[in-house]
Amino acid sequence: MTGFSATVLTLYPEMFPGSLGASLAGKGLDKGIWSLETVQIRDFGEGRHRSVDDTPAGGGPGMVLRADVVGRALDSVAADDRPRLLMSPRGKPLTQSFVRELSAGPGVVILCGRFEGVDERIIEGRNLVEVSIGDYVLSGGEIAATVVLDAIVRLLPGVMGKDASGSEESFETGLLEYPHYTRPQVWEGRGIPEVLTSGDHGAVARWRRERSLEVTGARRPDLFGAWQAAHRGERPKK
Amino acid sequence: MTGFSATVLTLYPEMFPGSLGASLAGKGLDKGIWSLETVQIRDFGEGRHRSVDDTPAGGGPGMVLRADVVGRALDSVAADDRPRLLMSPRGKPLTQSFVRELSAGPGVVILCGRFEGVDERIIEGRNLVEVSIGDYVLSGGEIAATVVLDAIVRLLPGVMGKDASGSEESFETGLLEYPHYTRPQVWEGRGIPEVLTSGDHGAVARWRRERSLEVTGARRPDLFGAWQAAHRGERPKK
Repeated sequence: MTGFSATVLTLYPEMFPGSLGASLAGKGLDKGIWSLETVQIRDFGEGRHRSVDDTPAGGGPGMVLRADVVGRALDSVAADDRPRLLMSPRGKPLTQSFVRELSAGPGVVILCGRFEGVDERIIEGRNLVEVSIGDYVLSGGEIAATVVLDAIVRLLPGVMGKDASGSEESFETGLLEYPHYTRPQVWEGRGIPEVLTSGDHGAVARWRRERSLEVTGARRPDLFGAWQAAHRGERPKK
Repeated sequence: MTGFSATVLTLYPEMFPGSLGASLAGKGLDKGIWSLETVQIRDFGEGRHRSVDDTPAGGGPGMVLRADVVGRALDSVAADDRPRLLMSPRGKPLTQSFVRELSAGPGVVILCGRFEGVDERIIEGRNLVEVSIGDYVLSGGEIAATVVLDAIVRLLPGVMGKDASGSEESFETGLLEYPHYTRPQVWEGRGIPEVLTSGDHGAVARWRRERSLEVTGARRPDLFGAWQAAHRGERPKK
């Protein structure tokens, strides 16, 4: 197998490739830069009804995906070096550096949770890495898996093309991005900041860096604090 | 118009409803609990080629969505009380409480960014609320918009049905969820914690709360700190 290889275990294989079949990710799929296969968890279900879930031990609402069913589904995927992720709001928060690390690897196996959750024993028994895309609750892991894959795929060589602008983007520097402007010069009485049309590249770079620091400090004290700790002693030029 | 009304402005209307057409969100769409319309930004583009973007003022890679084009696209959507969001990694981080707030409102208008970004003047000129689903970069705002809509729609009355388990889930309590178990009783030598099959509801509740505190403290000191600040003096029962 060549290229980055993604396998998604889900009860809704029809959700894939979904949005990943369009735009940059879709072109990358067509070009064979990455591949995507789905595994229907229900194919490994119990009994005539291919049951995949059961009520939670200890009571409570919802249904829990069974460890034995999910185990069989996971074991049907060829054993290789790909990390196995479980999309879950309890997981390690997804960051751009983790995305970059995943994109440099051979691929990824992603288990999409549904219902109330999955039996904890499958996480331990198959060394799943729980990953969260953010502090909110989705109806299932499929859309979260789509987020992870889109973030990874755009970093694969050949996907973004020559116009790739990854290096200056939010989070690559640890700061939020500076504001962007383009034509028209004046829109509804609002102009473009003069420095940006001055032709002075140094001044443009300084202005952008100051705005990045400003917006990060105002909106994301958490990121700004981490950036300050990493750049101790460094001061933006006045 | 009845129900929650979502309008998405995008260069890729074919990405919608996408995953939102399946599962819970899809059933809600079919039942008319919510509605989804897309606006193709390109229909408001400049000239014969319906151009929507231009190079960034001040130089640099990528292309920037034009304020005038996006302004016309936004102005084509009926003026009403719905908040207007711009999906952007520079935005306010999406949280479950913001999702809940949005789900209680009349609907939402979502602008999906692409390329390097959108002209800053449209954010100011049309009072857009910049929202980020997490600290990573996607190829565009479409998948982020899908995340926001899925999170909102599952909270709309009638979508999750009687089995709704929202109240106990991660982030509703400010803590990550406790581990789940279901049949079989033993899987690959791993059992279900005894307390969960004891029938002692109080003991089950205490065990779950202790595990929630434990997993939150270990994985998310940020959430744990916020929870502690909000529950000062309260101690889990031993």
